[in-house]
Amino acid sequence: MKRLFTRGAILSMKEREPLLTDAAMLVDGDRIAWVGNGLPPKQEWDELVDMKDRLLLPGWVNTHNHAAMTLLRGYADDLPLQIWLEKHMWPMEARFQAQQVQAGTRLAVLEMIRGGTTCFADMYDHMDEVAQVVADSGIRARLCRGVIGLGSEVERRSKLEEAVQFVRDWDGGADGRITTMLGPHAPYTCPPDYIRQIVEQAESLDQPIHTHLSETMAEVEQNVNDYGVRPVEHLDRLGVFRRPTLVAHAVHVNDEEIALLADRGVKISHNPGSNLKLGSGIAPISLMFRYGLKPALGTDGAASNNNLDLLGEIQLAALIHKGAEQNPEAVPAIQALAMGTRFGAEALFLEKEIGTLEPGKKADFISVDLTGPHMQPAHDLVSHLVYAASSADVQDVYVDGRPLMRNRQLLTLDEEKIRWEAQQAFHAIAPEKNLPDDGR
Amino acid sequence: MKRLFTRGAILSMKEREPLLTDAAMLVDGDRIAWVGNGLPPKQEWDELVDMKDRLLLPGWVNTHNHAAMTLLRGYADDLPLQIWLEKHMWPMEARFQAQQVQAGTRLAVLEMIRGGTTCFADMYDHMDEVAQVVADSGIRARLCRGVIGLGSEVERRSKLEEAVQFVRDWDGGADGRITTMLGPHAPYTCPPDYIRQIVEQAESLDQPIHTHLSETMAEVEQNVNDYGVRPVEHLDRLGVFRRPTLVAHAVHVNDEEIALLADRGVKISHNPGSNLKLGSGIAPISLMFRYGLKPALGTDGAASNNNLDLLGEIQLAALIHKGAEQNPEAVPAIQALAMGTRFGAEALFLEKEIGTLEPGKKADFISVDLTGPHMQPAHDLVSHLVYAASSADVQDVYVDGRPLMRNRQLLTLDEEKIRWEAQQAFHAIAPEKNLPDDGR
Ligand SMILES: [Zn+2]
Ligand SMILES: [Zn+2]
Repeated sequence: MKRLFTRGAILSMKEREPLLTDAAMLVDGDRIAWVGNGLPPKQEWDELVDMKDRLLLPGWVNTHNHAAMTLLRGYADDLPLQIWLEKHMWPMEARFQAQQVQAGTRLAVLEMIRGGTTCFADMYDHMDEVAQVVADSGIRARLCRGVIGLGSEVERRSKLEEAVQFVRDWDGGADGRITTMLGPHAPYTCPPDYIRQIVEQAESLDQPIHTHLSETMAEVEQNVNDYGVRPVEHLDRLGVFRRPTLVAHAVHVNDEEIALLADRGVKISHNPGSNLKLGSGIAPISLMFRYGLKPALGTDGAASNNNLDLLGEIQLAALIHKGAEQNPEAVPAIQALAMGTRFGAEALFLEKEIGTLEPGKKADFISVDLTGPHMQPAHDLVSHLVYAASSADVQDVYVDGRPLMRNRQLLTLDEEKIRWEAQQAFHAIAPEKNLPDDGR
Repeated sequence: MKRLFTRGAILSMKEREPLLTDAAMLVDGDRIAWVGNGLPPKQEWDELVDMKDRLLLPGWVNTHNHAAMTLLRGYADDLPLQIWLEKHMWPMEARFQAQQVQAGTRLAVLEMIRGGTTCFADMYDHMDEVAQVVADSGIRARLCRGVIGLGSEVERRSKLEEAVQFVRDWDGGADGRITTMLGPHAPYTCPPDYIRQIVEQAESLDQPIHTHLSETMAEVEQNVNDYGVRPVEHLDRLGVFRRPTLVAHAVHVNDEEIALLADRGVKISHNPGSNLKLGSGIAPISLMFRYGLKPALGTDGAASNNNLDLLGEIQLAALIHKGAEQNPEAVPAIQALAMGTRFGAEALFLEKEIGTLEPGKKADFISVDLTGPHMQPAHDLVSHLVYAASSADVQDVYVDGRPLMRNRQLLTLDEEKIRWEAQQAFHAIAPEKNLPDDGR
């Protein structure tokens, strides 16, 4: 199947490549065959798709998520982190069965596709359910069974075995759309010995590692109390960074820690929406850039965001550091877009396959409508995309060359069914007093 | 004309009034006649409108804007404030004629209506054009001719006369939808004597005053250098706060200044998007609340935002203070919504007419679609609206009981014409090298 997309604007997100204004892209099967101004030299296609008034660019890469938690969106807000976690999230999550994970993940994937996300990282449990939703929906994902090492030795061993089994079952699954990682939850939830075991497994399975790092000040202080060092040095000593590693948050990291993360080639998932909403703080993103890091973006779970709108994260990344540093030159628009695309691909170790639009790469891309009043006058599309657009402007979403959404119509998911099942799955575990008003 | 809106959720935004889940609202002419659960006792209507799956609430009030500057959206970004202003904004604005103001304002009003804004404040020049767009579009506005006192005595006098004439011509215009103010631009652009003259005029015309205040640190320092006091005390000494006053920004105000603003009953327009984007900083909103102020929200002009999405400002207000203060309880969701509605009405001195849905008030309201995946599961609509919705979810917009948008179809404005004219008006003043790519 060859599809030729014509007459669009194209932003390849290759470094220093300018926006093409009247351009075409040829997709052959699951890969990009040609991108450029005008039309390709050899004009053969099975379908011609007119992209007039649309901007094509790589799909968003959401580098940190707990998709199933979308079921708990808005369940508890505006609370101190410990109360939010201990009184609200954990009791609800303890009631999660396969049904909840499936319904929550479907709802999450539906929302992500509608918003232009073509690839996401996920850390949760019941991961077979998550992988199946990824397989069915057509989206791309790098998944891991998140392991918390606070239980008994037996529980710990069983969780790690599950994580390893998940890698064996799913790495390279769904025609290669699914890849995997090992996911020790965080330094404060995994004892050092356990982290060492996970690193060993990651080495023998040749897997990257994904973990939470220094989301809150309290966590950093606890790490110093418990282990005498701050979390970055702690993880470095445990050998974590010998593996390709992606850390989420990194809000409370100092200069030396950033230098060490850069030296070790650690990938950063910046989660501005979640960090703001939970009152965690504002990550030192400009400093990370100065040390050569290329932070990517993530939404975190929808229980702490409260949506999975990666364009929203791009926009927050472009705005909040300017304000916090009182520097209008912090995180320019094109850099924020790179954080949501190319750097995201690098953060998930998928940069050979996705993250830019260029021949040979997987055809994971989106189109954005340029006709809305908020996109006028039309003279700087990058600016408009970052500072004025909304994810509702995303019109088309393709993964592996396959359309998942066209003109905002979903092609692989049944919206009404997913909405209904999410409501049911939520009801099944919500305490009576918190029953939703679903008069609809 | 009586319209009965049924089966919707209704958030009246009256203080401490809970969300009604299966409710109705009767609108008689330009005013609300009844709001409540179920149906009104006397069921008479000319039109019945089904609001199932929709949330009705007061329309957004945008308390600070320069609508015509929408024509310069994305014209120059990511630059230090002085370069942005002096090299880009001012040269372009110097070329603004009535055509540019009309086209820019139409584009702005189009975008605002689409996003659910039913009332806005504006400060610019060629204000007759702005008022005419307000009259034609059906939106509500409080307008002022912004006066900068940096020119000659003759220029200053002529600008003030224009501002006074504008009040005489338009206060109460467009069936009362237009009200006016006097608008000394800022303490750093208006000499003290000029501000005193404006206050005198405001007194004799019984007009409120709207001005910029302490947007940047540099401005505050300059004020101290020039006048020996910080801007709040400076304006207080000049008698400004004897008039009902609305100040925009108030980013760099200290405890004593906030106390003085609260004591004088000054209204605050918090502009988080613009303050972040220009690197101005983050206003001390939580502190303002502690002193009893009720800050409202504004977008500022689209050249520094870069959109006119008041729901986006509500969302920023609910997020950034939590992050900046590392306090997840800062600016709870319902407070952020009040900033965008009821407090906005108070900030524009229109609280007797708009800002809540209750019998006797003007029927200025919007409906929000509740069926999107990002709005599920449906158990806390206030949370979803503030933390997950987007302005693209706004379906219907009514002002004075008159529909301006229904099911996202605009009823008073011609979108395509406005887009085209904005492009033309921009072209007419843009230097060659900055010609837009309008291949469309
Ligand atoms: Zn997380
Ligand atoms: Zn302004």
